[in-house]
Amino acid sequence: MKLTILGSSSALPTSERFPSAHVLNAHERLFLIDCGEGTQMQLRKARLRIGKISHIFITHLHGDHVFGLYGLISTFSLMGREHTLYVYAPERFREMLTSHLKDFDINVKFPIDFIPLTGNDPIRIYDDKYLTVTSFPLKHRVDAYGFLFREKPADRNIIREAIDKYHIPTVRIPAIKKGEDFVSEDGTVIKNEEITRPPAEPLSYAYCSDTSYFRRLAGFVRGVSLLYHEATFDKSLSELARVTGHSTSVDAARTAKEAQAKALIIGHFSARYKDISFLVAEASEIFPRTIAAVDGETYDIAEISKS
Amino acid sequence: MKLTILGSSSALPTSERFPSAHVLNAHERLFLIDCGEGTQMQLRKARLRIGKISHIFITHLHGDHVFGLYGLISTFSLMGREHTLYVYAPERFREMLTSHLKDFDINVKFPIDFIPLTGNDPIRIYDDKYLTVTSFPLKHRVDAYGFLFREKPADRNIIREAIDKYHIPTVRIPAIKKGEDFVSEDGTVIKNEEITRPPAEPLSYAYCSDTSYFRRLAGFVRGVSLLYHEATFDKSLSELARVTGHSTSVDAARTAKEAQAKALIIGHFSARYKDISFLVAEASEIFPRTIAAVDGETYDIAEISKS
Repeated sequence: MKLTILGSSSALPTSERFPSAHVLNAHERLFLIDCGEGTQMQLRKARLRIGKISHIFITHLHGDHVFGLYGLISTFSLMGREHTLYVYAPERFREMLTSHLKDFDINVKFPIDFIPLTGNDPIRIYDDKYLTVTSFPLKHRVDAYGFLFREKPADRNIIREAIDKYHIPTVRIPAIKKGEDFVSEDGTVIKNEEITRPPAEPLSYAYCSDTSYFRRLAGFVRGVSLLYHEATFDKSLSELARVTGHSTSVDAARTAKEAQAKALIIGHFSARYKDISFLVAEASEIFPRTIAAVDGETYDIAEISKS
Repeated sequence: MKLTILGSSSALPTSERFPSAHVLNAHERLFLIDCGEGTQMQLRKARLRIGKISHIFITHLHGDHVFGLYGLISTFSLMGREHTLYVYAPERFREMLTSHLKDFDINVKFPIDFIPLTGNDPIRIYDDKYLTVTSFPLKHRVDAYGFLFREKPADRNIIREAIDKYHIPTVRIPAIKKGEDFVSEDGTVIKNEEITRPPAEPLSYAYCSDTSYFRRLAGFVRGVSLLYHEATFDKSLSELARVTGHSTSVDAARTAKEAQAKALIIGHFSARYKDISFLVAEASEIFPRTIAAVDGETYDIAEISKS
């Protein structure tokens, strides 16, 4: 799992930071989370293959999380895309998207499958061989949702020497990888633990933006490998954070700590901060493994969450 | 008059070129022409003061000329703008803009004055102390308009030595600058040409994108100092240009030549071209003073149009 940050500004972009957009590369599928203005240009700059994006997750209907989507869909069309695009967003966006594309004469020649986000509890919205994605409610000025991407446990790794030692036939290997014991020709039972090693710990990534602090949030992302949490403001502006439905560096760190996340990456910084190192310092006092999002950077989640 | 190119791609942006947007600085007013996705980020990168933009001219309702506008208006709001924004665009956009801003919860606290573009002939749409702006129809798949920015002739320059020589009182100077002769106390008439020098030639800038070639266009921009003309395709793709309502390098040069423009800058390049020097070469065969638009560059129109 690799995460590329395309935009880490809040509503007001700066010369260094574009509006919100992340790309999660999980088993060579690209999942786009939020799509602020300029996302398609940032994708090109990061040399990510635009055509490999099939799932776009929109947290909420504020422009700094959405305004790159029309251009991206237009680009998909111009590139001759034919395969389905899945858009996950609050229900209200279904009609808005359709009418915006029509208003601008964008002739979409591929299917768009719209999956509405809803509910006060986590809901599994995506499931494939390797991964599940769960949406959960955030606390913002408008309906907003976070997303948890979680790898499925991989198969156990068979020990090569054990195959020779116990003369394990190839046909039995898939079942052994799933955890079965091996029964040899003479009826001896070889315990699974003796012939396999456990797989790598499944990784996970959670995206929480935009949101105020609320106690339940940590439960939604419990044990996550890497938590992205907005930290629009420093801790002295907690009242402004509350009023605008945002978080401070300390709110982000508190949720990371309560969730027992392995690592925290903060972003969605207010344009008032030229240097955000003190936001990292504030968060680190509560949750030491905190880093700041940087536009264009790619983070290896296995690496960053290693204990 | 200084022109800054913020975006010179056609509908498909590249890692080098953003979608269409130009800024014309005329007497320290900034006029924004088209507003493709990412315009506000490009404005910041070019260190142009966003708050100094009060007039935005939208040629037509295709996304690569418009999708940066919602974000820019949102940014104006967040920056606490209070003064009126004038938006010139095809009539249909009035309702679209209002409803898009509402859909996205963008609380615009300053007045937006919408001026609809219309007509089959040039129409003066702006007039101030220094400058007029005229819209004229282009030939594209949808209603599209070009814009001609033309400086008003400046006052004549009084010759300092003449003031001393003829004892010209300060109170008479404004009239003399306007072209009046000077009558001295003894009744001698001093011809205006003897005591003043003509002002610099008024400059002008025309923006023609998106459009096919059509004969009347040259007449709309006759004698312009700098002509920006789209050249989406090279000359081998003239059929594709015709079908899509665009121009080739040769079309752009032909219009520049017929209009007796002083200089031509081409842009709106198809993403198929990595290197656009051969488009410039094709145009230069017909109109030698051709250059290619480069994102982020600023061009001094007096300099570029000097014979």
